[in-house]
Amino acid sequence: MSAERILHPRLRERIVSAEAAAALIQPGETVAMSGFTGSGYPKAVPIALAQRIEAAHLQGQAFKIRLMTGASTAPELDGALAKAEGIALRMPFQTDPDARQRINAGTLDYIDIHLSHVAQHVWFGFYGEIDTAVVEVAGIREDGSLIPSTSIGNNKTWLDLARKVIVEVNDWQPAGIDGMHDVYYGTALPPQRKPIPLLHADDRIGEPSLRCDPDKIVAVVRTHGPDRNSPFTPADASSERIAAHLIAFLQHEVSKGRLPANLLPLQSGVGNIPNAVLAGLASSGFRDLSAFTEVIQDGMLDLLRSGVLKVASCTGFALSPEANEEFKRNIAFYRQRIILRTQEISNHPELVRRLGCIAMNGMIEADLYGNVNSTHVMGSRIMNGIGGSGDFARNSFLSIFLSPSTAKHGSISAIVPMVSHVDHTEHDVSIIVTEHGLADLRGLPPRHRARQLIDHCVDPSYRAQLEDYFDRALHDSYGKHTPHLLPEALFWHQRWLETGSMHAAG
Amino acid sequence: MSAERILHPRLRERIVSAEAAAALIQPGETVAMSGFTGSGYPKAVPIALAQRIEAAHLQGQAFKIRLMTGASTAPELDGALAKAEGIALRMPFQTDPDARQRINAGTLDYIDIHLSHVAQHVWFGFYGEIDTAVVEVAGIREDGSLIPSTSIGNNKTWLDLARKVIVEVNDWQPAGIDGMHDVYYGTALPPQRKPIPLLHADDRIGEPSLRCDPDKIVAVVRTHGPDRNSPFTPADASSERIAAHLIAFLQHEVSKGRLPANLLPLQSGVGNIPNAVLAGLASSGFRDLSAFTEVIQDGMLDLLRSGVLKVASCTGFALSPEANEEFKRNIAFYRQRIILRTQEISNHPELVRRLGCIAMNGMIEADLYGNVNSTHVMGSRIMNGIGGSGDFARNSFLSIFLSPSTAKHGSISAIVPMVSHVDHTEHDVSIIVTEHGLADLRGLPPRHRARQLIDHCVDPSYRAQLEDYFDRALHDSYGKHTPHLLPEALFWHQRWLETGSMHAAG
Repeated sequence: MSAERILHPRLRERIVSAEAAAALIQPGETVAMSGFTGSGYPKAVPIALAQRIEAAHLQGQAFKIRLMTGASTAPELDGALAKAEGIALRMPFQTDPDARQRINAGTLDYIDIHLSHVAQHVWFGFYGEIDTAVVEVAGIREDGSLIPSTSIGNNKTWLDLARKVIVEVNDWQPAGIDGMHDVYYGTALPPQRKPIPLLHADDRIGEPSLRCDPDKIVAVVRTHGPDRNSPFTPADASSERIAAHLIAFLQHEVSKGRLPANLLPLQSGVGNIPNAVLAGLASSGFRDLSAFTEVIQDGMLDLLRSGVLKVASCTGFALSPEANEEFKRNIAFYRQRIILRTQEISNHPELVRRLGCIAMNGMIEADLYGNVNSTHVMGSRIMNGIGGSGDFARNSFLSIFLSPSTAKHGSISAIVPMVSHVDHTEHDVSIIVTEHGLADLRGLPPRHRARQLIDHCVDPSYRAQLEDYFDRALHDSYGKHTPHLLPEALFWHQRWLETGSMHAAG
Repeated sequence: MSAERILHPRLRERIVSAEAAAALIQPGETVAMSGFTGSGYPKAVPIALAQRIEAAHLQGQAFKIRLMTGASTAPELDGALAKAEGIALRMPFQTDPDARQRINAGTLDYIDIHLSHVAQHVWFGFYGEIDTAVVEVAGIREDGSLIPSTSIGNNKTWLDLARKVIVEVNDWQPAGIDGMHDVYYGTALPPQRKPIPLLHADDRIGEPSLRCDPDKIVAVVRTHGPDRNSPFTPADASSERIAAHLIAFLQHEVSKGRLPANLLPLQSGVGNIPNAVLAGLASSGFRDLSAFTEVIQDGMLDLLRSGVLKVASCTGFALSPEANEEFKRNIAFYRQRIILRTQEISNHPELVRRLGCIAMNGMIEADLYGNVNSTHVMGSRIMNGIGGSGDFARNSFLSIFLSPSTAKHGSISAIVPMVSHVDHTEHDVSIIVTEHGLADLRGLPPRHRARQLIDHCVDPSYRAQLEDYFDRALHDSYGKHTPHLLPEALFWHQRWLETGSMHAAG
């Protein structure tokens, strides 16, 4: 059935089973796979590899790999390999519960790095050699070039650097995706680097296919399986309030002349709140918007259909099954409006700054002075990873962080005296929004930022407690530039660990 | 005497005393001044303004300004205005003891921001309007354009945006500096931004002068005074050991093929350790080096003279009086090899990443997992500011932080369980060096980074204590990805506040 997707004669001869392909991966290898936010990851070889690893373990043989991807994948990849105890080292991002459990138990090493750094750091040689690349594609052209699938991620780099390549050709992916990609081959190692000639979110600067030396392709595996399509959850009241605060702010900035009427290219994290923001934009009179982001989710397809959004640049998708069906049905429409890029381009600091993106990302917690923790629960347990939030926050026109003011039924406050881990420093955060309001931290020194967060963002059930900390810190802190009481600064977190609530007793 | 430096007839008519110029600045104004690391700051108007402010205060009148510069200045600017209690708000960087004392007493508001963000954030409108610019120049051409002085900093932006401009023409500055500058006028607000056409540290992409509408220039003041030239301190043994570790590492990277033989453009912070590194490079056989940095100090002039360094790009100087004399004497030689740029270009993330800089910066402390604190003593008291360290660390090829392993006669460890403030996150730090050795954190997950820092960087007098924390955290931490014991994580700092030493008793 998928043979027609494989037009290169010699590569057709290399079609094998997933098991035969997985047998080409040896213990200890560094394996670089495709996949970004549950789209475009290999569907068959990782499972076959996990079975092979389990069999080896049953026979008392050690078998682990070092695993790299674009970003998060799916149970068939991260989940299967983690459950098989087959991953020694994982990078750069993951969201899998089985992998997460092992990372936080200390049995799986995880490196959390900026998504824009991955390709270059591997190319620089900081991670050693890549033994095998396993990359899903939508097809192989007659000349051997590869039609990318629903994500590109780091695939260009994996194919360039790997000693051997396994290609999965997934005919579940729509053939009409051909032409949606823009693979830029102008990156280089310093000192040979040149400006990246992208001036607008919809500029095409590359090629529609991935290059790969056919001699490196040791196996081709045919698959027919869906991406990890998470069900769409309608926005809750809290997300809608967060979205309303943010949209009112954007309208205010337009009215003050600090933003154009069609804003600046939007970057949006994935999830309930971003979807609510996108839905809010649809009904707020904005027109001719553009997106320069990592991932396209349901809300962006809606905006493209309604014409509110002209174009969306990304490196992958995170769609619900319904949105995916609609995407496939109208792929000719979307192919005119969506550009899939490598993640070194979708997240490139040069481009994020040039375009002046409006960066909208979630967070775990922020502190009085605007430092943001995106990754660690109670300072030690990693949730997912920093992903591209740092690439966008540091270089954007506006660096916005969005979160409900509390988590776990109110037992955790998202606004704390001192964050238990820092991913975005005070220098990189301009706006924080919770359902209670918006803190505009631009141009404010630390103590004034604290006032904004106490007045606008913290949940009322934590306000007195936060104000009390701040007042005493103003009085008793060693320095008054960033007032802190060190014995108490992380006490809210410790109290939660001990009592299950950050609320003071009584 | 300096009349010959002012060739524009109308501007010659606006020559007034510093006191008359200072009288044009009103209470509450936002005043943007020149100056970067003690070079090129106005020498006369700030002092006259401080006197005016003191006189107003004696008469019971309120008089403060909001003060912006390029970076740090000198006692005649920050010191005089701080002692006059004339600064309401200061940004983006300072090193003055009188200003620092007030900032940490909570009586002077200070905003610490990335130096590459300053010009654009002001241009975006995040800081309101600039009322007055006070800019030192080396001369005024017949067409009214301004020959920059020993720093450019944000002067282009100040002159573009200020409602009125006061120019100081300092004929202490060498006339031969004309031609050393490269002022780029291609920046824009998004969505009009274009690639910055700089491919090598020695590319010239701009103009030799600053543009300024003569109608905005309300006063011209003649001055004759030196920059703040700090005496040169010879490298101590600790700095020399730090330099030796770093240079051995760079040689190793060249031998592995990860760095070209002539390295990549160097960025170097200011101080004793960077000078030792530069001296070490001079005697290690490296040739044809280049620098793309903020500030040129004595060691770089030495490297240029010896031919080890071909070119140095910067935005200002920090020279000893002897080096300054030599610089002036041989300015024709240096004019061929030094390019002074605006700080939005010298620190631009796009360029730092394209060139692949080797970033070398100092720090206050690093923690077990590679987070770096560059700004805050004991988490609350600011030292100087982040300066350009974030611009370079995040975007460099190698992000290196250098520090003695202890401070204050051993009572403070520079390697701690958890830093008390984060300026550079774990994602942005590749190498940490103390006199004891070098921790190579590239490609390592958190617990392995801790091992590197314990084995190579921490002072032996703190090693057992740090190892003990890490061992117990490995066992008892809530999550084992980034093991921490929250009640103890900041206890070293608290112990220092209480006992004067981070050492455990007994």
